[in-house]
Amino acid sequence: MRNLMLLVEYDGTDYQGFQWQMGRPTIQGELEKALEAVTGQRTRVIGAGRTDAGVHARGQVVSCRSGMALSPDQLRSALNARLPKDIAVKAISPAAEGFHARFAAKSREYRYTIWNSSVRSPLAWRYAFHFSKPLEAEAMHTACCSLIGTHDFASFGSRLWERGTTQRTVYRAECWREGDFVYVEVEANAFLAQMMRGVVGTLIWVGEGRLRPEDFQHILEARDRRLARNLAPPQGLCLTRIVY
Amino acid sequence: MRNLMLLVEYDGTDYQGFQWQMGRPTIQGELEKALEAVTGQRTRVIGAGRTDAGVHARGQVVSCRSGMALSPDQLRSALNARLPKDIAVKAISPAAEGFHARFAAKSREYRYTIWNSSVRSPLAWRYAFHFSKPLEAEAMHTACCSLIGTHDFASFGSRLWERGTTQRTVYRAECWREGDFVYVEVEANAFLAQMMRGVVGTLIWVGEGRLRPEDFQHILEARDRRLARNLAPPQGLCLTRIVY
Repeated sequence: MRNLMLLVEYDGTDYQGFQWQMGRPTIQGELEKALEAVTGQRTRVIGAGRTDAGVHARGQVVSCRSGMALSPDQLRSALNARLPKDIAVKAISPAAEGFHARFAAKSREYRYTIWNSSVRSPLAWRYAFHFSKPLEAEAMHTACCSLIGTHDFASFGSRLWERGTTQRTVYRAECWREGDFVYVEVEANAFLAQMMRGVVGTLIWVGEGRLRPEDFQHILEARDRRLARNLAPPQGLCLTRIVY
Repeated sequence: MRNLMLLVEYDGTDYQGFQWQMGRPTIQGELEKALEAVTGQRTRVIGAGRTDAGVHARGQVVSCRSGMALSPDQLRSALNARLPKDIAVKAISPAAEGFHARFAAKSREYRYTIWNSSVRSPLAWRYAFHFSKPLEAEAMHTACCSLIGTHDFASFGSRLWERGTTQRTVYRAECWREGDFVYVEVEANAFLAQMMRGVVGTLIWVGEGRLRPEDFQHILEARDRRLARNLAPPQGLCLTRIVY
């Protein structure tokens, strides 16, 4: 048995998220189905990030164990031939014994894309959230800088299991405009469930002028989920990179 | 009755092209249905470019006549509320009496996008043609420069009506690489049916090394459709701009 590391890209529009669910289309389910078809063995995959329903990934990493004799490149081609067109394995490399895609990850990077124009865009709606009122990206950037560092992010997301902590460390947080697009990018050691969407939803209130950047920081410090209930929709979110 | 000019964007994936066809989904059909629902009048729209099935547009222009009292912005909002999410009217402006979106156009610009990587991309497949063998974009650029000027383009496309000419004038033709994407952009006074896809299909042969740039020029000069039978698929093509 070998341990493998797979770099995976997907369009999450038609999936119920990464994690396997009985009878529903998920990224994990499709990857495991393709692995079983190619290798003849039931194979469990572990993803570095558990993306929600409708969220995309350009840099998801999964690990799995396989007894196959195929080279990584042959296995990649065989998997891509079986996977639906909205999921692809971009690269496969051998991983050290005991490598675990989730526990070994040093950080994750997510990018959120907002299409900020009075008119919706038929060419952007799958990968961007359309928000028609003008957003002040500089105020959003000022606000999101207060995320940097080690904080209790309870205002912006939920713990993943009952006894987990809501403390995380954000290494980088940026917001900027390029034409009609506004981007929010955050790199952290790990994310709470729905944390990125909670952050962006509240940043949008700052961008509209409904909150000041200081209010954003107060919401963070309050550690109260009820203060940040504007959850940005999933289609703007993309898991862009995992660092090991 | 007023004459109007509409700037239209669409994702052509699920349509049988711009032009109206009985009982099939087309861009023209959807625009006319929305106009009739909003204005209560049957309205004929004229498009500047007749895009093929599966081809996208970021800058299609259509003209129509309307007796509505709504302001252009109100009409735009009402149309966008009715149109499917893969079609939108980006702007409406009053046009001079007698303005005709097709006849008045001085030039059209198309862009073709190739995803040139050994692995397909789930986030790019709707708007790019996946070509896995490495392409030499510089050779493709050298070849496509021979399109510039007034030529008989019979090798690359068909006349739109029986007595039409196959002579067109290309003002600009460029090919370049950005990472794993290769782009081909051509601006011409007008295009023959399937001309852009015929040009790109033959340029791909140059990029692969199956043809030299000089061979591309000989194919153009031969005015023989049988020499350029590699038609690039529609999903990579986008009508980007109409100049008046």
